[in-house]
Amino acid sequence: MERYLFCISFNGSSYFGWQVQKNCVTVQSVVQDAVEAVFGSRINVKACSRTDSGVHANNFYFHMDLNLKISLNRLIFVLNNKLPQDVVLKSVKKVEKNFHARYSVKKKEYIYKIWTGKFKNPFLKGLVLNYFRKIDLKRILKAAKFLVGKHNFSSFCGSGSSVLEKTRTIYLLDAYFEGEMLIFKIVGDGFLYNMVRIIVGTLLEVSEGVLKPEDVKKILEKKDRKFAGRTVKAAGLYLNEVTY
Amino acid sequence: MERYLFCISFNGSSYFGWQVQKNCVTVQSVVQDAVEAVFGSRINVKACSRTDSGVHANNFYFHMDLNLKISLNRLIFVLNNKLPQDVVLKSVKKVEKNFHARYSVKKKEYIYKIWTGKFKNPFLKGLVLNYFRKIDLKRILKAAKFLVGKHNFSSFCGSGSSVLEKTRTIYLLDAYFEGEMLIFKIVGDGFLYNMVRIIVGTLLEVSEGVLKPEDVKKILEKKDRKFAGRTVKAAGLYLNEVTY
Repeated sequence: MERYLFCISFNGSSYFGWQVQKNCVTVQSVVQDAVEAVFGSRINVKACSRTDSGVHANNFYFHMDLNLKISLNRLIFVLNNKLPQDVVLKSVKKVEKNFHARYSVKKKEYIYKIWTGKFKNPFLKGLVLNYFRKIDLKRILKAAKFLVGKHNFSSFCGSGSSVLEKTRTIYLLDAYFEGEMLIFKIVGDGFLYNMVRIIVGTLLEVSEGVLKPEDVKKILEKKDRKFAGRTVKAAGLYLNEVTY
Repeated sequence: MERYLFCISFNGSSYFGWQVQKNCVTVQSVVQDAVEAVFGSRINVKACSRTDSGVHANNFYFHMDLNLKISLNRLIFVLNNKLPQDVVLKSVKKVEKNFHARYSVKKKEYIYKIWTGKFKNPFLKGLVLNYFRKIDLKRILKAAKFLVGKHNFSSFCGSGSSVLEKTRTIYLLDAYFEGEMLIFKIVGDGFLYNMVRIIVGTLLEVSEGVLKPEDVKKILEKKDRKFAGRTVKAAGLYLNEVTY
């Protein structure tokens, strides 16, 4: 048996997140269905992270132990034939036996897409947050600086999380326009439940004038979710890259 | 009563085309639902054309006679609030009483999108034709030239059409890449049933070597659908613009 690392891209619109759940179609369940169709047995795959219902991924990783008798290119081809159109296998590579898709993660990069065009874009349904107010990018970037670095992110952790240690390091937090699309990019060593969505929601409230940029520093210090801004919807969130 | 011309953009993935049908959700039915919600009565709208199930539009036009008591900007705002996210009203303008969204059309422009990337793009589900064979753009463009001009397009008309006069003029037929997306653009004074989809299917067969570029001229002369290439799927087709 050898260990293989798989990289997929998926449109999460039609899925109840990654993780297998009873009576729900999840990305993991369609991946395991495809693997079963190819190998004849159900193999448990270990993923780089969970994702919420409706969240997307440009690059999402999982590993699997296989006794492979076909080439990796052939494996990619046959698995893609079994996968639905909104889940695509991009690459597979052999890794060390002690490699783990989740525990070997060094950094994760998320992006959050906000459509700011005059009208909704009908071709981006489920893929963006639609937002029609003026964006004050200067205020957003000023506020974002307070979040970069090693902090206790309790104020930016959604309720329902059972994680006890809430210190994380954010290496980069940027916001920029690509045409009419506002993109938030955030790189960190790990993220708490809903953390990216609460950070984006809080930075939008800074843009709106509800919060001052300096308030973000105070919110961090409170270590209490109720002081941060709203949780923006899942649709705009993409796991963009994972560094091992 | 004044006559108004409306321009909408829609993602046709979830609709059984434009035209109202029994027991089907169509773009026309959701538009008329929105109009009814705003004006309190069901108003029949007259469209620039029908579209098939799954076909999209960047700019699609219809007219309606209204006794309007609010500004056009307000009308756009309230109608967009009643429309689903995949149907967007972009503009409304007053036109002459004898203007007709269908009969006043001078030119129509369609585009057809073909995704040629190494892997399917999960975010373009329902929005493109996925195509993994090599594209010979030179052969396509050579063949396309035979279709430009005024011709009897019987060979490029889908069965099930009741139209008798099958002469149409094509002003432009182009094909080009935008990154990994192959785009066909076609402008004409009018199009027969499935005409664009059969033209694209035929040009792909020229690219594949099944047909020679010069065969397209012979196919036109046959005036018989069975000599042209396949009908490509609806998902890649967009009504792009209408000239009045």
